[in-house]
Amino acid sequence: MRIYGDVGSGNCYKIKLLLSLLNIKHVWIHVDILKKDTQTQEFLSLNPNGKIPVLVLEDGRVLSESNAILGYLAEGTKFIPIDPYIKAKMYQWMFFEQYSHEPFIAVARFINKYLGLPEDRRTEYYNLQPKGHKALSIMDKVLVENDYLTGPNLTIADIALYAYTHVANEGGFDLKLYPNIQAWCQRIQEYPRYVSMIE
Amino acid sequence: MRIYGDVGSGNCYKIKLLLSLLNIKHVWIHVDILKKDTQTQEFLSLNPNGKIPVLVLEDGRVLSESNAILGYLAEGTKFIPIDPYIKAKMYQWMFFEQYSHEPFIAVARFINKYLGLPEDRRTEYYNLQPKGHKALSIMDKVLVENDYLTGPNLTIADIALYAYTHVANEGGFDLKLYPNIQAWCQRIQEYPRYVSMIE
Repeated sequence: MRIYGDVGSGNCYKIKLLLSLLNIKHVWIHVDILKKDTQTQEFLSLNPNGKIPVLVLEDGRVLSESNAILGYLAEGTKFIPIDPYIKAKMYQWMFFEQYSHEPFIAVARFINKYLGLPEDRRTEYYNLQPKGHKALSIMDKVLVENDYLTGPNLTIADIALYAYTHVANEGGFDLKLYPNIQAWCQRIQEYPRYVSMIE
Repeated sequence: MRIYGDVGSGNCYKIKLLLSLLNIKHVWIHVDILKKDTQTQEFLSLNPNGKIPVLVLEDGRVLSESNAILGYLAEGTKFIPIDPYIKAKMYQWMFFEQYSHEPFIAVARFINKYLGLPEDRRTEYYNLQPKGHKALSIMDKVLVENDYLTGPNLTIADIALYAYTHVANEGGFDLKLYPNIQAWCQRIQEYPRYVSMIE
């Protein structure tokens, strides 16, 4: 299988991390969004939405949306709960990630780290801060009681949320405010076959 | 089971439509976001993210995020494909809905229909238009070849995307530009046990 992505993007790093945990062989094709690689005719034929990551299977079938790719790759493994309610909680966290976490934390990180916090995006950047902190607070409270977001076991919801959470400081979010998130990050980093974003 | 929601919200109507298609008995508790019903301590104890819909099972367990609720309710029914790749495509469309469709089409509709297009949100409203049209264009192209988003059968991805798409005109999006979407809406409206948003 081939993955089109940029490992510096949390949405792509999610896939890299799961592939490593599952020890799945793959070819990684680097795509640079700042160079508009996702807007070429060739790339849009893979994903008309012009976003990474994209998974291309050996038979040519294509899948986009990072969390849908996680679900496909983890199918039948211990990273997807069998219990229907816990599996639904896993998806609850994954939809939370895409609607109430990523648009604030990933975007603030992008504006700060990749664009250098330009003057014309500072208002937007500062407006993202309380929204990102709300998401982190919700996560931190759940992690008081549980090792992972859905209970005692790591699922793809943890992988999905870890991706941008562990680098939230690059978007101006101080993780020292969230001790349970910090402990959870540590647990994930100690998981067998863990791979970091920059490796 | 109890559902907390407002059927005028597409995210809540999704649940109402699936419950009707599956003929599942439930109690619907009306929640008015304009009256800040979702920000009370009581509501936040159900969903700390302060959003509807929320599902409360008979044993008191809670689930939020509309698309996670759809997945839970449809588990084991014909509305979730068995084939792992087609199921992943279904989730691809559901994540697309929450990230690349709802934030534009539902928000434009909210600004126009519920707030009456106030002066201070007009720039935002007009900026949402091309983004919403991009989402509709992507859907329309896929529906040239398929009756439903993932192939010949209706899945919860169709229910998720139908919810705000069929009222996109209320957000300023002219569906006459999208004949395949119009035909798809018609197919869904003719589906056995279909229920409309306003019933």
